[in-house]
Amino acid sequence: MKIGVIGCGAIGSFLSYIFKKSGYDVIAIDKIHGCKEQRVIVEKLGEENIRICGYEDIKEELDYLIFTVKAYDLDEAISLSLNNIKAKLAISTQNGLYSLEKLEKFFDAASMIIYYGIKKIEKCHSLFSGGNKIVLGCKNKNCTNEFKDFKLNEINLELVENVEPYRWEKVIINSAINPIATLYLKHNGFILENEHAYDLSLKIAEESKEIASLLNINFKRDPIKELIDTLRNTYYNYNSTLQDICLGKEKTELDYINLALYEVAKKSNYEAKYNYFAYKSVIALKNLIKANNRLCEQIK
Amino acid sequence: MKIGVIGCGAIGSFLSYIFKKSGYDVIAIDKIHGCKEQRVIVEKLGEENIRICGYEDIKEELDYLIFTVKAYDLDEAISLSLNNIKAKLAISTQNGLYSLEKLEKFFDAASMIIYYGIKKIEKCHSLFSGGNKIVLGCKNKNCTNEFKDFKLNEINLELVENVEPYRWEKVIINSAINPIATLYLKHNGFILENEHAYDLSLKIAEESKEIASLLNINFKRDPIKELIDTLRNTYYNYNSTLQDICLGKEKTELDYINLALYEVAKKSNYEAKYNYFAYKSVIALKNLIKANNRLCEQIK
Repeated sequence: MKIGVIGCGAIGSFLSYIFKKSGYDVIAIDKIHGCKEQRVIVEKLGEENIRICGYEDIKEELDYLIFTVKAYDLDEAISLSLNNIKAKLAISTQNGLYSLEKLEKFFDAASMIIYYGIKKIEKCHSLFSGGNKIVLGCKNKNCTNEFKDFKLNEINLELVENVEPYRWEKVIINSAINPIATLYLKHNGFILENEHAYDLSLKIAEESKEIASLLNINFKRDPIKELIDTLRNTYYNYNSTLQDICLGKEKTELDYINLALYEVAKKSNYEAKYNYFAYKSVIALKNLIKANNRLCEQIK
Repeated sequence: MKIGVIGCGAIGSFLSYIFKKSGYDVIAIDKIHGCKEQRVIVEKLGEENIRICGYEDIKEELDYLIFTVKAYDLDEAISLSLNNIKAKLAISTQNGLYSLEKLEKFFDAASMIIYYGIKKIEKCHSLFSGGNKIVLGCKNKNCTNEFKDFKLNEINLELVENVEPYRWEKVIINSAINPIATLYLKHNGFILENEHAYDLSLKIAEESKEIASLLNINFKRDPIKELIDTLRNTYYNYNSTLQDICLGKEKTELDYINLALYEVAKKSNYEAKYNYFAYKSVIALKNLIKANNRLCEQIK
């Protein structure tokens, strides 16, 4: 089975390693010319030699094409893929809304929700910090049969009939953690330490949950409880939004989390004010940090 | 005519000076024992010797008792006054809601809205930075007759039939400026410089205006336009909330501005989410600053 993995960041290097280690034919895909061997290192797990090729250099048809780039880079990755790459099914690993929907326009598509902690050190070199499972499934249709032969070494893979509740759980949790921890330039645990930040985080999560209920998403477990568990389990983490704005990146994932929730809610005539304030307050900070990067000193 | 002025901060020293200069019998009132002469200096205006007495030392009945302490110190000032001081009418000078209402429980009361810039340097020593008027009136009743003989030197005093629109204009403006400039530890002009901070500021002001409309407050001029003018006119100012939290004060005026708006709206079953987020995000910052006062370095 041929698996293409687009991107060699935290998630890309993790999945390339895991699939290769599990015996699959893996091709990493990146903006390069030609193909070469690449050592992919996932500290605490191991390392593998992987063939890495440019988008133009994939000659064979792929079974699965896994998009691991950040949500804000997905449009470009899709458009580069469409020129040349043939794949039976595309898999989205991005946080937030919109990404799976974008893939569905061009491919049969599934979503992979990763409950493992992986931090990028540099390209194709990451650090694994534990976790418990990967959930894989399609939106509002059962595609578990497609993946029933997947066997991943040492990874707990759970196939689900409908991936939506899992995707939304993560959106809700991210909507409540990322902007608040980012606004104060703090690790996630700050939200548990500061009762007012905690209150705001809960207010956002409750609003996001209300938006999910407008869309008839049915959760097996209360996302608010999951939020609190996540805050405990990621106490010392700096979230991806905070890392992105401190790296001076132009875009952040919040466009696909709080802003996306605000936009989705608007279609049901619901004004998601907490998500809007959370989004805007971080974007205001991003512009401030661009002018004074010293503000990020404490998180380095 | 005998005028008692409680407090000798920015507003107290300004009013004590203005009334004395205009020929009135002024007694400054503070938490001291006995009475003494006090030099009250308002830089750019002038200085006057004023008699300052403890709350227990006011023997004569006063015509007007002006409360100039901050909103969060008003309860204490009222309770100290009630032990001993007799006054025909009390005047509130505080920003925000609740203060006039508190005075009305114990006195005939009026509200004074001050459109002059005054900055405290130390006790009874302030700096005057211009402005255009003082508005004086009662809530939902015409008390202009009471003040018709007031003559203040060089001060434009405007008597109004109903002070509510003026008080609410200021609440709306403060609700939109104070929390946003404070959240980023910036001067007011930052809100004009940063389009996302500006957007949030407008969102809060619009919500506050909606709350005013629930209470049937009729504005002569659009408070949103006044907000924008105020941002321009106070470009380099650090607002009082930011000053208070950087001085490590336990309480802030936001309890009487954004939180008060949230609570007032709740009585009409309206959830003022923007005001709530604004309030909570600053209180979370206040607790963070207590732990790391270095954050305030830039504003000193």
